[in-house]
Amino acid sequence: MKTDHLGRLYGVGVGPGDPELLTLKAARLIASARIIAYPAPQGGESFARQIVKDHISPEAREITIEIPMRPERAAAQPAYDKGAEDIRKQLEAGEDVVVLCEGDPFFYGSFMYLFERLQADFEAEVIPGVNSVSACASRLQQPLTGRNDVLTVLPGSMDDDAMTARLNMGGAFAIMKFGRHLPRIRALLKKLDLIDKAGYVERATLSNERVLPLKELGEDAVPYFSMILIYDGEETWKK
Amino acid sequence: MKTDHLGRLYGVGVGPGDPELLTLKAARLIASARIIAYPAPQGGESFARQIVKDHISPEAREITIEIPMRPERAAAQPAYDKGAEDIRKQLEAGEDVVVLCEGDPFFYGSFMYLFERLQADFEAEVIPGVNSVSACASRLQQPLTGRNDVLTVLPGSMDDDAMTARLNMGGAFAIMKFGRHLPRIRALLKKLDLIDKAGYVERATLSNERVLPLKELGEDAVPYFSMILIYDGEETWKK
Repeated sequence: MKTDHLGRLYGVGVGPGDPELLTLKAARLIASARIIAYPAPQGGESFARQIVKDHISPEAREITIEIPMRPERAAAQPAYDKGAEDIRKQLEAGEDVVVLCEGDPFFYGSFMYLFERLQADFEAEVIPGVNSVSACASRLQQPLTGRNDVLTVLPGSMDDDAMTARLNMGGAFAIMKFGRHLPRIRALLKKLDLIDKAGYVERATLSNERVLPLKELGEDAVPYFSMILIYDGEETWKK
Repeated sequence: MKTDHLGRLYGVGVGPGDPELLTLKAARLIASARIIAYPAPQGGESFARQIVKDHISPEAREITIEIPMRPERAAAQPAYDKGAEDIRKQLEAGEDVVVLCEGDPFFYGSFMYLFERLQADFEAEVIPGVNSVSACASRLQQPLTGRNDVLTVLPGSMDDDAMTARLNMGGAFAIMKFGRHLPRIRALLKKLDLIDKAGYVERATLSNERVLPLKELGEDAVPYFSMILIYDGEETWKK
């Protein structure tokens, strides 16, 4: 059914936040798009749209996919069903649709929920973006991985045993999406003697970013866009 | 010693290969740079320079860091010593220096060898780029990680036992820099019943890229820029 008269679905990574960290390809596709879709928290603004707003044509039609902000995965699925149906109508009418995605579309991105609903029926192209791990490492001014290092990206919701098993294997680590799990993770890193090797980055590349050693971070709640980077590998970068 | 009259060191990620996957910030810094440095294989062309050649000003002075192509880490270190000294002279004279880096500078990038030699004495800024893992996932048309997945990036030189221990923990995997280790890794993935979940990407985003299931790859030697992606996590993306 992927025939010539159908539109093409683009999943476009817009990078971590600094509007200049958009790729040339993303800027070109967004500027020429007639239909642009993006997720937004219910009643709130879309972060992805905010990053690229200067590139959007005033003639573009915009499709907002309103996502209820509840932690259970199931809560968001009807919103992606509806968003995918709105996009499907455009693609069937022969219109290309550019979907904006924070960071990189296939790296923990919400684009995959649209992709899995539409890819069987339409041509799709993903434009990779600067992902949050690369962005945070650059702001921490600490190389992430060299030569024979292993890099492990851990979601903060993992339980202590599973996280300990991974951390004990060594290498470089990025811990993401921790939110309310931060006190527990911090205690675990202390116990494993990794706390002195841990850096903390919040809202990387945005004007209100914060970069500091994790042990200097206070006890307040942290925003969703925060990350812990740990280097426990074989390289010796002088600081 | 990081005083105002010194130049600034920029480590600029130029992305995986497609010149359009350069960020706007990288394009701006490169176009305005008076001094540009990059590693190149001894007697060969610099891949990073090739990606961005259309942005380099004809007035720019270029510093080539010739890297001997031998597998031992030690072989390249004198080349980075010399490169760092050449760059140091420019920085001390008050000139900014833009160092080009394939992919992302802090993700297995050679920039870290210059960074560790210069960062104590000069202001440095790293511009993150689209890294090879994000690029390969986009070309494979397969999401890399969702929600609670763990992503592990493994260098192909790891021995079977170490790699098996990681692979047995599940999640998403990217195996990089395997070269002559490919037959061994392929046998290991067969043994662990992961071969059917493995995709192969070579020269991602370049005109001569190849994308195929790993089990369909022939026995010939593969280029340095190749990657295996495996998804053994909890999401069920329809193909």
